[in-house]
Amino acid sequence: MYIERLNAAGDIKQFEGDELMPLAAEIREFLIDHISRTGGHLASNLGVVELTIALHRVLELPKDKLIWDVGHQCYTHKLLTGRRDAFDGLRSYGGISGFPKSAESDCDAFDTGHSSTSISAGLGFAMARDLKGGHERIVSVIGDGSMTGGMAFEAINNAAALKHNYVIVLNDNNMSISENVGTLSAALSRMRTSGWYKGLKEGVHQSLEKIPVYGGKIDATIHRAKGGIKQLMIPGMLFEELGLMYLGPVDGHNIPLMERTLREAFSYNGPVLVHVQTKKGRGFLPAERHPSRFHGTEPFDKERGLPLKHGKATYTDIFSTVMLKLGERDERVIAITAAMMDGTGLKRFHNKFPERFVDVGLAEEHAVTFAAALAKSGMRPVVAVYSSFLQRAYDQILHDVCMQSLPVIFAIDRAGITGADGETHQGVFDLSYLGTMPNMTILSPMNKWELSDMLKYALTYNKGPVAIRYPKGEAFDGLQEKRRRIAYARALELEGGGDVLLFAVGSMVKTALEVKARLKRSGIDAAVVNARFAKPIDTRYLARAADKYRIIVPMEENVISGGFGERVQSFLTESGYEGKVLITAVPNRFVPHGAVETLKRKCKIDAASIARCIKKAYS
Amino acid sequence: MYIERLNAAGDIKQFEGDELMPLAAEIREFLIDHISRTGGHLASNLGVVELTIALHRVLELPKDKLIWDVGHQCYTHKLLTGRRDAFDGLRSYGGISGFPKSAESDCDAFDTGHSSTSISAGLGFAMARDLKGGHERIVSVIGDGSMTGGMAFEAINNAAALKHNYVIVLNDNNMSISENVGTLSAALSRMRTSGWYKGLKEGVHQSLEKIPVYGGKIDATIHRAKGGIKQLMIPGMLFEELGLMYLGPVDGHNIPLMERTLREAFSYNGPVLVHVQTKKGRGFLPAERHPSRFHGTEPFDKERGLPLKHGKATYTDIFSTVMLKLGERDERVIAITAAMMDGTGLKRFHNKFPERFVDVGLAEEHAVTFAAALAKSGMRPVVAVYSSFLQRAYDQILHDVCMQSLPVIFAIDRAGITGADGETHQGVFDLSYLGTMPNMTILSPMNKWELSDMLKYALTYNKGPVAIRYPKGEAFDGLQEKRRRIAYARALELEGGGDVLLFAVGSMVKTALEVKARLKRSGIDAAVVNARFAKPIDTRYLARAADKYRIIVPMEENVISGGFGERVQSFLTESGYEGKVLITAVPNRFVPHGAVETLKRKCKIDAASIARCIKKAYS
Repeated sequence: MYIERLNAAGDIKQFEGDELMPLAAEIREFLIDHISRTGGHLASNLGVVELTIALHRVLELPKDKLIWDVGHQCYTHKLLTGRRDAFDGLRSYGGISGFPKSAESDCDAFDTGHSSTSISAGLGFAMARDLKGGHERIVSVIGDGSMTGGMAFEAINNAAALKHNYVIVLNDNNMSISENVGTLSAALSRMRTSGWYKGLKEGVHQSLEKIPVYGGKIDATIHRAKGGIKQLMIPGMLFEELGLMYLGPVDGHNIPLMERTLREAFSYNGPVLVHVQTKKGRGFLPAERHPSRFHGTEPFDKERGLPLKHGKATYTDIFSTVMLKLGERDERVIAITAAMMDGTGLKRFHNKFPERFVDVGLAEEHAVTFAAALAKSGMRPVVAVYSSFLQRAYDQILHDVCMQSLPVIFAIDRAGITGADGETHQGVFDLSYLGTMPNMTILSPMNKWELSDMLKYALTYNKGPVAIRYPKGEAFDGLQEKRRRIAYARALELEGGGDVLLFAVGSMVKTALEVKARLKRSGIDAAVVNARFAKPIDTRYLARAADKYRIIVPMEENVISGGFGERVQSFLTESGYEGKVLITAVPNRFVPHGAVETLKRKCKIDAASIARCIKKAYS
Repeated sequence: MYIERLNAAGDIKQFEGDELMPLAAEIREFLIDHISRTGGHLASNLGVVELTIALHRVLELPKDKLIWDVGHQCYTHKLLTGRRDAFDGLRSYGGISGFPKSAESDCDAFDTGHSSTSISAGLGFAMARDLKGGHERIVSVIGDGSMTGGMAFEAINNAAALKHNYVIVLNDNNMSISENVGTLSAALSRMRTSGWYKGLKEGVHQSLEKIPVYGGKIDATIHRAKGGIKQLMIPGMLFEELGLMYLGPVDGHNIPLMERTLREAFSYNGPVLVHVQTKKGRGFLPAERHPSRFHGTEPFDKERGLPLKHGKATYTDIFSTVMLKLGERDERVIAITAAMMDGTGLKRFHNKFPERFVDVGLAEEHAVTFAAALAKSGMRPVVAVYSSFLQRAYDQILHDVCMQSLPVIFAIDRAGITGADGETHQGVFDLSYLGTMPNMTILSPMNKWELSDMLKYALTYNKGPVAIRYPKGEAFDGLQEKRRRIAYARALELEGGGDVLLFAVGSMVKTALEVKARLKRSGIDAAVVNARFAKPIDTRYLARAADKYRIIVPMEENVISGGFGERVQSFLTESGYEGKVLITAVPNRFVPHGAVETLKRKCKIDAASIARCIKKAYS
């Protein structure tokens, strides 16, 4: 096996040219085999096998710096830097991460996880090198999807001005996670078709007759001439205009060609963009055909290319179904996603109401302000986004939505502990940062029916923004008998009890029922209340509860700091509550990758830990 | 006076062509006269007098939607929409805002204040209009500085794909607030010089010999050919590449030309960018020469073009001086600003250490991740930024800096109540959102010496990021005798007392001294402690204090929710404190414009209000 010769960074340089394609095939087999068992990012990794080999043959790691944008495509990089044996533990607690981690290897130059950061990071490395008089080479690898994120443009604007030697590899697979959108995509497509040579001859005649219009008379025909002259393009004009030297497009599955291009790129002064074309999912037909389904995947049957288990409906499925109903019932409803049409469950809405669906690209900032203006015009936009990605739009939510108190609905998926993707994807800050924003209302459903009810409720509430946060994975389908109408800032009592109150947000309601059962075995009778509103909290209920319960346990899947529990604690303290408030929340630190249940145990927000903690306080 | 004929939206349409230039002159005189008395944004407003007139002659307000990016250039717009008489109260409490406010006039389509949001907002209005079958016209006016903000690119990428009819006016004055930076600026400069016609003839020959390199051999000469062919440009190629129809450049002080261009722009289908060139500060020589100094100005002597008062050194001045020292002492120190070289006080650093100074443009997101990589390379970046603008980089601080615990120093100016700019510029959320971030340390100085000490201290602390927040305006120069070494997470006792503890962050230390004096007159003896660390709080000190004081008063210029006071309260509650915690902070709502002292009084964080509140609790 060729793959067994890869034991440390640099080993790839010992391969003969004709050994590389068989090696690439072995790597693909290795990846498919392992990911089918562990789950992980498949399509993106299969796409960059040859690109990674070429980069490693040209670079000297760890001296040179290689930065992976997002980082979900770093598996071959990990294989090539001595981590092959660790793949059995990929993404499990204590095992290797699915993303670059400098704590794991000094070949991982910069930790990533969210999109569009790699050009900024590469530029920082380049400037530091030049100030220190170093000679290491610096490469950022960024997908065309990530290029639609605004900070990538901010970084290019700055990179070209600073003029450090530095290479950006644009990994163009004509995809972000869903199908790519926007004009950048169209511009890249023009680069790929490379019609400039033909266009050059045709365009010149039409254009020579025209002159620019500064300070003079507008010639109405100028723009038509431009239609012709636009064909007259050199490849990569967009990037050249932005001050990068452009090389490409280059076949991203041709290793010798990429090696030559990269060496050439390093020979230039200033920032260079190498445009590489790859195919997402390459070498595994189901992933080539459905790259979005095989973006981040659970374990699957690699022979049939199908998921191993069909579980119960997820919260995403419920959201997907309810959005269809809301779209039918109310013409003002508009669905917005930032490159996550499939992940957020909006594909069916898109198919049914294409004119009321917008995929803005990997652009959460724009998504939110765009939604604000739609709401200001009387529409009812629903921004569906993962919790940790919504962090990108903090200022826009505060400044464009909350300040004008506009009725934008935020459907926040993957809130709470999400598991195997680790630190960068845990949704454990939203209750804190949204909770601070004036005019923001935050709901969280205890089960699948309540998600539906809350979405419908949000649509009736037009005084300001409403965020509904729900976790990854299967929706809880118990407690249907407790379905009750939603009322503003009102909690829902589920189970009576003695002198302990479990006051739980969203997913923690189910945990609270388990805690109650455990406490009962120890002779403690706990009441269970579904908070429903993480903000504003039901102070009327809490004021009554303060008289009745000597221990009140706010429960949330969010960090302690600034979260729901602290809001409850603060209210009770101010009201002179003399009992004990036991905040049950994620500790104030980053939560690594691992199985959700493991992580909850480590964070002490599983039923057993909570029950233990209450028993201790009770005695 | 022509200006007196402007009493409502649309009045400008009654003017004859030859009356417009005299009117523009009157408007300039009006603006200079008023702003010299009230303070406000001068240079940006003087630049767009003619542009605003042209827009108002073409548009029908409020039916049509006109969105001002940032909004600090909306004064002529306010004059033209019936608010002339309100200018005496400009930016004062209860008076008109210096920014667009839909609550103030239905001619203000969308509230702005931070940069780069207008294209997103305009696109939202355009989509809503088309869904509703409306016919109103929609224009966003955005400066070239704001164009460097990533979300402007995100919005353009989306606008071109959605194809709604919609006009973007690029107000190009070759400035953001400081001098403009980056390649976008260079590209605009090329558009302005319009050298395409000449370049066309020269470029073609060199380029015709070359073919693109997809899948083939790299020709090392291709990039040289491109150098030639790059001259071969039509104006606005960058924007055309991004899918916008480009018109311009147009002289932004020529009203009839702009009117014709705008009408033409509205006649096209799809998004159109009209490139208008204006001169910032136009018509007032001191502002033309020093547009940055006259960006946002205090009252000034309009005859001499000089500020009315020279007050004591501001915190910005202190920062400016200390940065010079740090730069001399430590070669690893790098200063980064997002288009605020003057405002943040980094001009002197820039002059002295140009190679270690970076102005990234209006690009806080990039600034922070760029700084993260510099820190990862062993440098000591200092990101100097206003509190409310740092909100833009929430995710980058959390994800790229805190997660890797990198020693980036954040110098957060304009923290707390900033006054006349209003809601969008108050820096009252940073203690909450930074406080939630793991690994983040937050300091705030009580006086000018402590700012210096804290900056030096931050440079010695290399375990993670340090944020130092300080307010706008004059630095407190009392308490020099209390200067003591900074120790991690340790507060500083200033004044002993009886059973009340004033535990104050930063600027509130001075207020605490005043509160102490007031309480003394009522026979209450209060201790004063400088918290120094807003996070982590000095729990060792608080644990001792809990035994001694029956009222503990945390004091901060930040919203209550998730802030310093709640952290103190939560710690004390958990420790079983039986006294009273009186949180003194900004209420959980947006703080409008007005004088700082007025706003503090309204927020009840002035000495009198706090003393009153304590006396009430004491009895």
